Amino acid sequence: MSEMKYRKGGFTLPGEAGYEQLTLDLARKWGADVIRDSDGTKLSSEITDAGYRIYSTICIIRQHNEFAEKHPDAQQQTFLITEPQVAAEEELTISLMDAYFSEQLELNDTPDALEYYQVYDRTSGVEVPRDQWTYAEGKVTVHGAKKWHQYTVSFLAWRIWEEINMYNHTTNSWTSAHLRQLDPRHPAAWEYLQNWMENWCVENPQTNVIRLTSLFYNFVWIWGDDLRNRHRFTDWASYDFTVSPAALKAFEQKHGYALTAEDFVNGGKFQVTHMPPTAHKKDYMEFIQDFVAEKAKVLVDIIHKHGKEAYVFYDDSWVGMEPNGPRFSKVGFDGLIKCVFSGFECRLCANAKVPVHELRFHPYLFPVGLGGAPTFMPGGNPTRDALQYWKNVRRALLRQPVDRIGLGGYLHLTLDFPDFNDCIEDMAIEFRRIVEMHQHGAPYAMPCKVAVMHTWGELRAWTLSGHFHETDKHNLIHINEALSGLPVDVKFVSFEDVENGALEGVDVVINAGRAGDAWSGGDAWKSDKLVEAVTKFVYEGGSFIGVGEPSALAGGHTYFRLANVLGIDEDTGARVCHGRWQAEVETVPVKVDESVLQANPHLYLTDGKAKVLAQKDGVPVMTVNEFGKGKAVYMSSFRVGADSTRMLLELLAWLSGAEKTYLSDNALVESAYYPADNTLVALNNSEETVKASIQLPEGRIDVELQPMETRMIKL
Amino acid sequence: MSEMKYRKGGFTLPGEAGYEQLTLDLARKWGADVIRDSDGTKLSSEITDAGYRIYSTICIIRQHNEFAEKHPDAQQQTFLITEPQVAAEEELTISLMDAYFSEQLELNDTPDALEYYQVYDRTSGVEVPRDQWTYAEGKVTVHGAKKWHQYTVSFLAWRIWEEINMYNHTTNSWTSAHLRQLDPRHPAAWEYLQNWMENWCVENPQTNVIRLTSLFYNFVWIWGDDLRNRHRFTDWASYDFTVSPAALKAFEQKHGYALTAEDFVNGGKFQVTHMPPTAHKKDYMEFIQDFVAEKAKVLVDIIHKHGKEAYVFYDDSWVGMEPNGPRFSKVGFDGLIKCVFSGFECRLCANAKVPVHELRFHPYLFPVGLGGAPTFMPGGNPTRDALQYWKNVRRALLRQPVDRIGLGGYLHLTLDFPDFNDCIEDMAIEFRRIVEMHQHGAPYAMPCKVAVMHTWGELRAWTLSGHFHETDKHNLIHINEALSGLPVDVKFVSFEDVENGALEGVDVVINAGRAGDAWSGGDAWKSDKLVEAVTKFVYEGGSFIGVGEPSALAGGHTYFRLANVLGIDEDTGARVCHGRWQAEVETVPVKVDESVLQANPHLYLTDGKAKVLAQKDGVPVMTVNEFGKGKAVYMSSFRVGADSTRMLLELLAWLSGAEKTYLSDNALVESAYYPADNTLVALNNSEETVKASIQLPEGRIDVELQPMETRMIKL
Repeated sequence: MSEMKYRKGGFTLPGEAGYEQLTLDLARKWGADVIRDSDGTKLSSEITDAGYRIYSTICIIRQHNEFAEKHPDAQQQTFLITEPQVAAEEELTISLMDAYFSEQLELNDTPDALEYYQVYDRTSGVEVPRDQWTYAEGKVTVHGAKKWHQYTVSFLAWRIWEEINMYNHTTNSWTSAHLRQLDPRHPAAWEYLQNWMENWCVENPQTNVIRLTSLFYNFVWIWGDDLRNRHRFTDWASYDFTVSPAALKAFEQKHGYALTAEDFVNGGKFQVTHMPPTAHKKDYMEFIQDFVAEKAKVLVDIIHKHGKEAYVFYDDSWVGMEPNGPRFSKVGFDGLIKCVFSGFECRLCANAKVPVHELRFHPYLFPVGLGGAPTFMPGGNPTRDALQYWKNVRRALLRQPVDRIGLGGYLHLTLDFPDFNDCIEDMAIEFRRIVEMHQHGAPYAMPCKVAVMHTWGELRAWTLSGHFHETDKHNLIHINEALSGLPVDVKFVSFEDVENGALEGVDVVINAGRAGDAWSGGDAWKSDKLVEAVTKFVYEGGSFIGVGEPSALAGGHTYFRLANVLGIDEDTGARVCHGRWQAEVETVPVKVDESVLQANPHLYLTDGKAKVLAQKDGVPVMTVNEFGKGKAVYMSSFRVGADSTRMLLELLAWLSGAEKTYLSDNALVESAYYPADNTLVALNNSEETVKASIQLPEGRIDVELQPMETRMIKL
Repeated sequence: MSEMKYRKGGFTLPGEAGYEQLTLDLARKWGADVIRDSDGTKLSSEITDAGYRIYSTICIIRQHNEFAEKHPDAQQQTFLITEPQVAAEEELTISLMDAYFSEQLELNDTPDALEYYQVYDRTSGVEVPRDQWTYAEGKVTVHGAKKWHQYTVSFLAWRIWEEINMYNHTTNSWTSAHLRQLDPRHPAAWEYLQNWMENWCVENPQTNVIRLTSLFYNFVWIWGDDLRNRHRFTDWASYDFTVSPAALKAFEQKHGYALTAEDFVNGGKFQVTHMPPTAHKKDYMEFIQDFVAEKAKVLVDIIHKHGKEAYVFYDDSWVGMEPNGPRFSKVGFDGLIKCVFSGFECRLCANAKVPVHELRFHPYLFPVGLGGAPTFMPGGNPTRDALQYWKNVRRALLRQPVDRIGLGGYLHLTLDFPDFNDCIEDMAIEFRRIVEMHQHGAPYAMPCKVAVMHTWGELRAWTLSGHFHETDKHNLIHINEALSGLPVDVKFVSFEDVENGALEGVDVVINAGRAGDAWSGGDAWKSDKLVEAVTKFVYEGGSFIGVGEPSALAGGHTYFRLANVLGIDEDTGARVCHGRWQAEVETVPVKVDESVLQANPHLYLTDGKAKVLAQKDGVPVMTVNEFGKGKAVYMSSFRVGADSTRMLLELLAWLSGAEKTYLSDNALVESAYYPADNTLVALNNSEETVKASIQLPEGRIDVELQPMETRMIKL
């Protein structure tokens, strides 16, 4: 494990001024080749001159408070909507900002913003004509309101506190100034930002890589006034925070039609990434993506001009910069940095078309971590946390490599945790060995090509919206996480892709979501062409896995559009008087993990021909249906875990007819085989010592693995 | 308890030929004043001449096999639909009768039936034009089918086995002839049936009351060929079995438009009573109700002409004869007989406008009972069964009286169960005492008027469709059952009624159902007028109780149309990124029974103002919201039981501000007070001895009650 060649490289260390010796010691221990600063910190020359490459962190739209104060109209904005208010009289006055956090949001009632205000009768679902309401001093009065109807007002607000700063500030009780953020669409601001970038490059010759955190628009994060419901709306992939009258006017000019407040606030529901976009939203997303890519390229060109590289951090203000979207590779970034808790995040990063892929490991070197739990402070156990995340990430890394790893935060916090430092040292060595094997050749994959089919396709490859723990109520994030470390080829396809032949060469297509959502597909299933494509695919020998409410669409003769393919459907109320097929549970060469299958009393077998693989309360929750030459598997739900991940793998193997070579007989042990190195890697995903027997083409090999061990076995 | 005046009257005994002495002995023991025959049995003169009134049972459309064989076109029919079949080629042949039980159903491919056949492309949801399919020998071939689309054929079938006979026959392995059934719409059949009725009256002078079991059309009960799914479709209140080309032609003539097969088969879902009817179905129901009432009146007139009375049994062939519908009282029936397992069935009967209301108690004097469990045979415990049903029924009887009770089946089966005979003797005495108290004056009711609001209103007062155990997945049947014995006034209102002022004078309105179903309301909630009426009602001081998915309608800014009134709503997917209001559980003067409240992760507080009364997995499942001067309570679900019934009562009392006089402090003990008799009745609803203290205006009274005891206390 300690060969010299694995002891250095591909590691980014967060330097810390005031702890110069510690910085250099840990750089050596962890084999860093790069030292970075962190938000709001500055490296001293003892560090920058020590022979390491230097990353400098820049949040381009933040830290310009002076400019923002002089040009308040250059600040970013968002649409907001009031709570619905019932009209008990014919005159109804609605105060606009009541529900919102006044330190983040400030009403924009300038004339060009007022143009976009809308009043809705939500009971009737119609807009109230402009001459039936008046605005004054933060309030709208509806005249001639219909009694007992509910009304809302949609309006624009300035965002006067950059959200990441706001979060860190309020979480850590900082007393520093609230950082503001500029909208690069504002001409003076854009001029200013280019000059600022130029100057920064000139003034920071020691920096090799500018690490952009990230570009212009934060994911939407609207805070409420009431601490009982602070985070009123949060969506890591929403476009709400890109809006302004200027953007709307530019959009109208380009697309020939105007967007309204309602296109954003959507009756208070907003346009969440988990739901299929409207046609207007799709147009708007392309419009913003174009803008972001164009402006990003200008900045990257400045950086390149100064002989520096431009890496971009995926999270925070990344909206419009989807790493797996079609525009990303055209910006000219030299690297993509992704913070990872999970395997799917590793794959998201690895999958992007960019020269360098870097992972920022967790835990962050902060006293507290996720949800306020202690990390680098008494009560914390950062080593355990690091191993937990490493367990998720390494299996994905074994499938698809990235180039670099690193940490973030304050190094001095590790002083009390020497075992953490040892742990990172080992991890870095393991990482380098994995990278090297990938360089020699790709790992063995089963001959099984999987397509995950949803609304967004490649644009949101491997991700839904945000981290695992923010989306863990969705079946698909569990599927993605399980898939991220399985020895199969995976691609992400949109419904449109499927209509255009994307299932060519695919063995198994997966559709996993809740009725109406972006992952199940919603109205996409109105397309007969889509139904035909998947039906034909299975009938002719392909396989389909549906999870939750796959292909669900109200109004047809069945709820799942592919009910005949699946042999199972969900009753939405009209079939409560229909007989249910009695069925015995049958077995197939897949070990079913019933613990991840939720009971759903509304499921029913359509024609009674599907095999039932699991039932709950007498109702099938997992089935397989022979359809033509193919098979369709249904699971009521899926949650990632050792047994369910193994079940998914066995399913994929069975459905595609692939040999289960290089698989262990213990669900806690995963493995990968690198033919070029003739090396088998066995992972113990548990915190106990375990034994496993792994199938090789020439026989079996028995291993005993220490807790969490990564064993590399030259065959 | 054994006063002479309570020992006789209001009791109908099923006589049994061959057991004449037993018949007369039990008639004396149980205080019968009437002896009836049963289906297919005949009373001997020793019984008919013994001084009792005599009921004779007639199923008017059955037992005419000779006529049916001569006039097969006079038999009843139904629409059927094939399983959807996928087109893998451009020519697709579909066999029509494959799925159906051939002893019940026979394809009708006569020219007038073929006219109503329809072929549908279910994938596109469009009918296939007549010139693109051909019919031959029980099969339809679609020409030029769209590949990978699903097709169905809808068609007419003769019903060649009367369903009740079919059920008894197959269940008891009878070997007798299959009874057929005639459609009174067939002119020759109708002529024949009138003559038959006339002759029957002439030939049976000893009969005082003709007990019609029941009229013409059985509830729909379509059997499948496969024993794994025998009862393909069963709905006690559906109109499917009333159809025929003649009926369709008459309908078209009357309404000016034609119905199609699709109006009935509805893509295979059929038109279930639990779903809101289409406009076509509503028209058709009225059309059939008119027909049934008109024809029934002709028969009743014949019966009256012969000096006999006509009672009608509610179940079996009762379709179109809703006892709480507007036409029932116009037929001229002298009595309504309802078999009862539950309190709501007692109220259904008691509520009908007819001179005599009679309950047929359970268990039936048969060897096996419900679902094949033993009753009058080794392993059975008919006394326990009788007490169980009596427990459900007596609390309803205490609220609203009926006139008579009775039993059905074979008396000789009671010979081995003397405790059963004693039990019925006691019950009959209790029944007579209750009836007498009602005659003196109504029981005390809390000043609380409840309106249960659903699609059907008064037409389906107290019932959904069938017995409790057939509808026990619906919240409303549990609410109805709980309400049936509570000291409050209850009425049933349709949404249309509510729009027209039906909430005038009401204290609490209840809406309990699943999104889209007839009980929640479905598209009825598209009406702004309805939303306005309920909103105004609550805002001005009324109360609303919503259970499950009340007022749910997709497409609005909230899912529950009354979300602002309730303060709680259900997320259908668009609000997964919205913050949830944190809330502590608060208390109100109602003891919450959490066991009946299902977890539902999708519920969320709208504006955070509703009080949370119960949470599951951190999500509110019971709330109360102050809205204007009124209150709205939400419960995620409801299941009837002692504690939940008490919770409902306490809720109604609290919401209406009523004093809880005459209530016990023990949920197992219910009570009713009869002011005219100054008598308090205390019921022990448990099988244990219990103590309770009952609140009187002048103080409290303590009681100790034996298991299941009915204690009548003169105050």
